[in-house]
Amino acid sequence: MDFTQIAKDPHCGARTGKIATPHGEVATPAFMPVGTQGTVKALTPEQVRALGAEIILGNTYHLYLRPGHRLIAAQGGLHRFMNWQGPILTDSGGFQIYSLGTLRTITDEGVDFQSHIDGSSHFLSPESTVEIQEALGSDIMMCLDECIPYPATRDEAEAALGRTARWAARCKSSRRNHSQALFGIIQGGVYPDLRRLSAESLLEIGFDGYALGGLSVGEPKELMLENLAATTPLLPENRPRYLMGVGTPEDLVDCVYHGIDMFDCVMPTRSARNGLLFTNGEKVVIKNARNREDGSPIDSACDCYTCLNYSRAYLRHLYVAGEILAMVLNTIHNLRYYLRLMERIREAVREGRYWDFRKRFLKERKDAEVIGLE
Amino acid sequence: MDFTQIAKDPHCGARTGKIATPHGEVATPAFMPVGTQGTVKALTPEQVRALGAEIILGNTYHLYLRPGHRLIAAQGGLHRFMNWQGPILTDSGGFQIYSLGTLRTITDEGVDFQSHIDGSSHFLSPESTVEIQEALGSDIMMCLDECIPYPATRDEAEAALGRTARWAARCKSSRRNHSQALFGIIQGGVYPDLRRLSAESLLEIGFDGYALGGLSVGEPKELMLENLAATTPLLPENRPRYLMGVGTPEDLVDCVYHGIDMFDCVMPTRSARNGLLFTNGEKVVIKNARNREDGSPIDSACDCYTCLNYSRAYLRHLYVAGEILAMVLNTIHNLRYYLRLMERIREAVREGRYWDFRKRFLKERKDAEVIGLE
Repeated sequence: MDFTQIAKDPHCGARTGKIATPHGEVATPAFMPVGTQGTVKALTPEQVRALGAEIILGNTYHLYLRPGHRLIAAQGGLHRFMNWQGPILTDSGGFQIYSLGTLRTITDEGVDFQSHIDGSSHFLSPESTVEIQEALGSDIMMCLDECIPYPATRDEAEAALGRTARWAARCKSSRRNHSQALFGIIQGGVYPDLRRLSAESLLEIGFDGYALGGLSVGEPKELMLENLAATTPLLPENRPRYLMGVGTPEDLVDCVYHGIDMFDCVMPTRSARNGLLFTNGEKVVIKNARNREDGSPIDSACDCYTCLNYSRAYLRHLYVAGEILAMVLNTIHNLRYYLRLMERIREAVREGRYWDFRKRFLKERKDAEVIGLE
Repeated sequence: MDFTQIAKDPHCGARTGKIATPHGEVATPAFMPVGTQGTVKALTPEQVRALGAEIILGNTYHLYLRPGHRLIAAQGGLHRFMNWQGPILTDSGGFQIYSLGTLRTITDEGVDFQSHIDGSSHFLSPESTVEIQEALGSDIMMCLDECIPYPATRDEAEAALGRTARWAARCKSSRRNHSQALFGIIQGGVYPDLRRLSAESLLEIGFDGYALGGLSVGEPKELMLENLAATTPLLPENRPRYLMGVGTPEDLVDCVYHGIDMFDCVMPTRSARNGLLFTNGEKVVIKNARNREDGSPIDSACDCYTCLNYSRAYLRHLYVAGEILAMVLNTIHNLRYYLRLMERIREAVREGRYWDFRKRFLKERKDAEVIGLE
């Protein structure tokens, strides 16, 4: 894996670049649609690609449990199994396991957990998550980290970042396939000095890219940005920076400002399945009665297949009738909204006007919010 | 609407032809995927078209109740509403209403029924079903008929066919838009002489095409074929013949033999959503453990998108994980199976070898069934 910075905004940390992987290139800043169980929910890979996605995310926890990484490896790896020819990033499984709450126990060795599917017992270590991700054959693997909730004490944050660093070193030494990149994950809660400490310890080990974990887990947005601002300047220019699990369109625009290159989030796809549709103006709740006889598209400025061919009236009908096509068309729209936003972000950075772009975008969304409340 | 017979098999009733409608031509014998609520479940119209479908069916009962025919008319008609540019046939709504059982009452005037959605009361007459179908703007409308269950006495069958003829006459006189074709429906239960009587009474009124209703409702297949054989020879060569709600692949092949030109059935789409996949060999139950590690496609002889790109192992995984994409990929395969069968049927008729084609096809399926049982 190779990262090349192409342009950097003179007024802030925003930058654009290119990640080269064994399965093709990814223009950054990039948004990765989430393909939890070996599919970006409701879409074919061709539909995902046509929306402008260049890389998708696979969830190691889910794929390990079902259908199993060995089965996927025997089927030729995740790319072939799911018919996605582009780059794939897999997470470590850690975040999903922490979200299991009482169903898991963490020790220095790793994490004991019970499957949410059948209650069976499993153990995930730094070594085994690398082994699983190597079996899946992703282009970018993530280290196992310890993610803490918000709020957490300074002591808890310090303990977690220490363990995260030790686990990261074990991940790195256990890898066998060097054509798959490996990213370290910076922890440290909402304590900027601990974030810096965590970053330094990972830099010392050395990774192909650096992720920020444990943010957007309930803390005020200002704290997230403050911690970003404290961390990204320490990271090398020639390595991509990935903010895990973030976020709203405003979050993406704000975090690119602080030098983030990669994002993933279930928000566009999950919202779509719940009938919540993104536009630069109001967020459309498709089942609302006001859409009943509305012959206009979700967003007349949108270039997606759904907006070019279907009315709100039709989409409301499909949603209310519980039709599968509602999920398909809504997902197409929301993902295109996110991916088009990334295109606009990259263009603004390339043209040296990110500062201005961000100001306008946030004002537009703010105004829309106010109109929505009226 | 115009029907042209192109070729007829010398040894049986099988024929191939072309229906010209305001939204394009349909090669017959044709299978119409069912688009109950303004969507062929799980697929975009482009996907449906790419499978070889030239005409789809819309359900008047469902569309009348939700979102309502007036709303669809205000949105530019059903074609535009659902983004299907090809021909559409709409049924009368009668069959769905009879299926409501105790929720409906039939008189000479029409049918009182309660909505399965909210229990509200509605009345459907021969006149109102034409009005609704004219609002939907389908290319082919169906008359309201009285469908009887199997078994039914001769007296019941006779009463129903009489009412069906009176209703058909009222449908014809109430139509206002003559660019939409209107088909009459032949009833008569499983009594060949009553079928002939029903056909004669409809021929006297005169329709753009003739459908056979009330078959494949539980009677032995031999009775269905006997009644078909008694009816189709009476029907004019220059009008299409439509067997409603039929059937299995074997049914299609057998009924084309008796001169049927058009079919519709939820079997391929509904089976797909239940993970039952058609092949010329065994019917594949995708969730079965035997598919767990099977890297081969559903059917290596199939040319559909699903078979060209996905393994049984992947399809089983999607199905077991409850993924929406399972419904999409399974529906694509089953519909392609049906539509490709129709292509093969048309080709066999055109080349004067339908007799032989049918014999081989039925033997192949029979053998497969025997293998499946072993």
